[in-house]
Amino acid sequence: MTPMTTAGLLHALRQRLGVDQVLTSDHDLAPYVNDWRGRFHGAALAVLRPAATDEVVQAMRLCGQAGVAVVPQGGNTGMCGGAVPVGARSQVVLSLQRLRQIEQVDPLGNVLTLQAGVTLAQAQEAAAAADRLFPLSLAAQGSAQVGGAIATNAGGTAVLRYGGMRDLVLGLEVVLADGQVLDLMRALRKDNTGYDLRQWFVGSEGTLGIVTRAVLKLFPRPTGVATVWLGLDGATQAVQLLRELQRQLGDTLTAFEFLDRRSLDLVLRHATGVVDPLARPHPWYVLAEVSGGGDGAALRRALEQALLAVLEAGLAQDAVLAESERQRLALWRLREEVSESERRHGASLKHDVAVPVAAMPELVARVSATLPAQVAWATPHCFGHVGDGNVHLNVSLPPGAPAAEQDRVSQIVYDHVLALQGSISAEHGIGQSKCAQLVQQRGERAVGLMRQMKQMLDPQGLLNPGKVLS
Amino acid sequence: MTPMTTAGLLHALRQRLGVDQVLTSDHDLAPYVNDWRGRFHGAALAVLRPAATDEVVQAMRLCGQAGVAVVPQGGNTGMCGGAVPVGARSQVVLSLQRLRQIEQVDPLGNVLTLQAGVTLAQAQEAAAAADRLFPLSLAAQGSAQVGGAIATNAGGTAVLRYGGMRDLVLGLEVVLADGQVLDLMRALRKDNTGYDLRQWFVGSEGTLGIVTRAVLKLFPRPTGVATVWLGLDGATQAVQLLRELQRQLGDTLTAFEFLDRRSLDLVLRHATGVVDPLARPHPWYVLAEVSGGGDGAALRRALEQALLAVLEAGLAQDAVLAESERQRLALWRLREEVSESERRHGASLKHDVAVPVAAMPELVARVSATLPAQVAWATPHCFGHVGDGNVHLNVSLPPGAPAAEQDRVSQIVYDHVLALQGSISAEHGIGQSKCAQLVQQRGERAVGLMRQMKQMLDPQGLLNPGKVLS
Repeated sequence: MTPMTTAGLLHALRQRLGVDQVLTSDHDLAPYVNDWRGRFHGAALAVLRPAATDEVVQAMRLCGQAGVAVVPQGGNTGMCGGAVPVGARSQVVLSLQRLRQIEQVDPLGNVLTLQAGVTLAQAQEAAAAADRLFPLSLAAQGSAQVGGAIATNAGGTAVLRYGGMRDLVLGLEVVLADGQVLDLMRALRKDNTGYDLRQWFVGSEGTLGIVTRAVLKLFPRPTGVATVWLGLDGATQAVQLLRELQRQLGDTLTAFEFLDRRSLDLVLRHATGVVDPLARPHPWYVLAEVSGGGDGAALRRALEQALLAVLEAGLAQDAVLAESERQRLALWRLREEVSESERRHGASLKHDVAVPVAAMPELVARVSATLPAQVAWATPHCFGHVGDGNVHLNVSLPPGAPAAEQDRVSQIVYDHVLALQGSISAEHGIGQSKCAQLVQQRGERAVGLMRQMKQMLDPQGLLNPGKVLS
Repeated sequence: MTPMTTAGLLHALRQRLGVDQVLTSDHDLAPYVNDWRGRFHGAALAVLRPAATDEVVQAMRLCGQAGVAVVPQGGNTGMCGGAVPVGARSQVVLSLQRLRQIEQVDPLGNVLTLQAGVTLAQAQEAAAAADRLFPLSLAAQGSAQVGGAIATNAGGTAVLRYGGMRDLVLGLEVVLADGQVLDLMRALRKDNTGYDLRQWFVGSEGTLGIVTRAVLKLFPRPTGVATVWLGLDGATQAVQLLRELQRQLGDTLTAFEFLDRRSLDLVLRHATGVVDPLARPHPWYVLAEVSGGGDGAALRRALEQALLAVLEAGLAQDAVLAESERQRLALWRLREEVSESERRHGASLKHDVAVPVAAMPELVARVSATLPAQVAWATPHCFGHVGDGNVHLNVSLPPGAPAAEQDRVSQIVYDHVLALQGSISAEHGIGQSKCAQLVQQRGERAVGLMRQMKQMLDPQGLLNPGKVLS
């Protein structure tokens, strides 16, 4: 069999998927080969838009025959260029956006069955309509798709209580590099029958298989909620405050986010209609939320009681409780607008890092103390998820900051993270932008095993080349 | 290099591990080559008792050179013979029991670092001493070891709220078949740097590597608790009751166990000092518990309020709240004594199965309706974990029940389970006793991938041969 020509491949793909679902013009390709932040620019032979698992299979088989690599893409909201093709115009992008069916919501079983192209927001809405909660929540949820969130093991603001995407996946359907369908679509809470193949694909960033369908966990929908904004002296108090609130409030504490004063200043400057809810500035802020059943009155009383104790113990300096849903959303906006305010402020270096929770204050202290001394313009600001030890440690770039200095700033941050046994990518993945750091992060032995796994499942290197393992 | 003789291997092992830590007499071997239930009887060249990771490495390398297979063993409390050697006297058992150090309890970071031979009970105690909860709880916890619980992805009674062992592992150290140490001992809540190698080993039953150390998640220690025993009309009500209590009580509902009347009868007959807490018999019983922070008064009020509603709605027919810790433990004993009472009653066929939660009543109905009609003596009794869809569907054996009939009973149960998209091993694993059912359960494609994984990590077949994949 002679290898298929590019023209032959595109012809065959159009026959299988439909003429309109194989895009090739530069104009049509643009939203798929560039990332939303404008940092990664790729080129592609074509963009494929299959509408069902069977069409993904057909596309994968044809591309395999032609030796053309496939870049699976969900909402293209990733931070590390994992869904954007690399290299010359030799790969195709396979968009899952038309696999957007919510197949079943089962409130008795607490499971949601859907296709990979459903957005996180649509999954949340489908759950809410059945009086259930699908908890994964992140800023890009209106565009980010379930398949992409599985492929990147997405995190967000609800990990403290509900875990990340890996914890929420009950079943998966995966199209493998050879075009076979691996059906792992069961809705079981417990299953110890051999190796758990689902885990191989969660967080593999489309390099081992293409997620086409999933069964996700649902939870009771909290009916009561109480939210508080606290001013703190620093990161050390934030960790202590978390443990003290958990001690008093148990699992009803479902969010515990933080930002430093610099991050809040960015929001106050660039977001519209926001105000500092506290009378005077504080070095650190925490947004804490309790949620659960009932009407929230008991939750609120418990929170108020806990707040009296933590204020008296000096773990927080001031606090304001949301008195209405409007106020609650206003407090959340202060946290959620950080990324967008940062973008409006100008370019920035982003570091999505994690350390053991107890080491988070030390990380912030070390970076804050050393970075501006080593690179004059590099004053970091921090925000993130205290309970996950996950800090978004970002640095606004002055115009014309030399690339070498930027790399030096990132390396300084990563060196501090690694010295504290941390992760240089807590929730964003490796994509194409962090491949060079992978061995330093994980060590030769672990990366060697990853390469063996890649070789085993994708010996031709057809799936998302140049990502994770380059 | 000529292969090592058996005598040469034992000599070298004694040099490395110490003379007393290489057992070879039949008397010394007996507790290691037979399982606690007396169902699996193996033979071994020797039992090795290394005291540290480095000694496990030495043992693994020497056995590899001699071509002798290694059976890793924790507390030897498994249900499927996974830790007992198979075949002729050709394998060695490697016991982790001397790796019993609790290395660190970090209440601020909520992590527990320990060696694999620590028992689950010891892990719970270490956590409690630091005012934290290590939630994995199961009947054998006094003997079952953390390493074995990781290797089998153990479940138990707290999965509803806290997940199984896979959900509780933050870090792992694994000795691979080639004697290399894979260090995955980080204490990170979020880490998306390449493939998650930890997942490969959790639930692999010692066939892919030997777990030697781990970092485990801790939780706030609940200070308040309220427990109720309910009489129900059947399994359908049990699932509805679970969802209604979750709706009202949210995540404070931390246990929801069930047993049927036949199971309770076994306990009332064979356990000492137990009484039926309700005035009249019911077909089904549920043991529900709420726990959280505070002194429990608010939890109890919320539970009482929820009980009024479910009794009025007819989801339960009667209920009794524990009025003291003594009463609470007495209610739990009714659930926990089922297995032991079953054992005292005589031999039984055990089926540890799971189906999607909403399908659990249908499974129980189908098996109850068909099994006694097909095999006259086969009247099942059921108990287990409603929220996990996990039913222990056991059948007491009359004396002299033919083996073929026993197999037929199991096959009937498994056929019903598979027809409902369920699992024939919810929490007990495959071990040596369920290998024959693996392909029927998981399909050729999935089992083929498992074989490739085994070949990749253990090409010589040195680790626990005859288990999971036979």
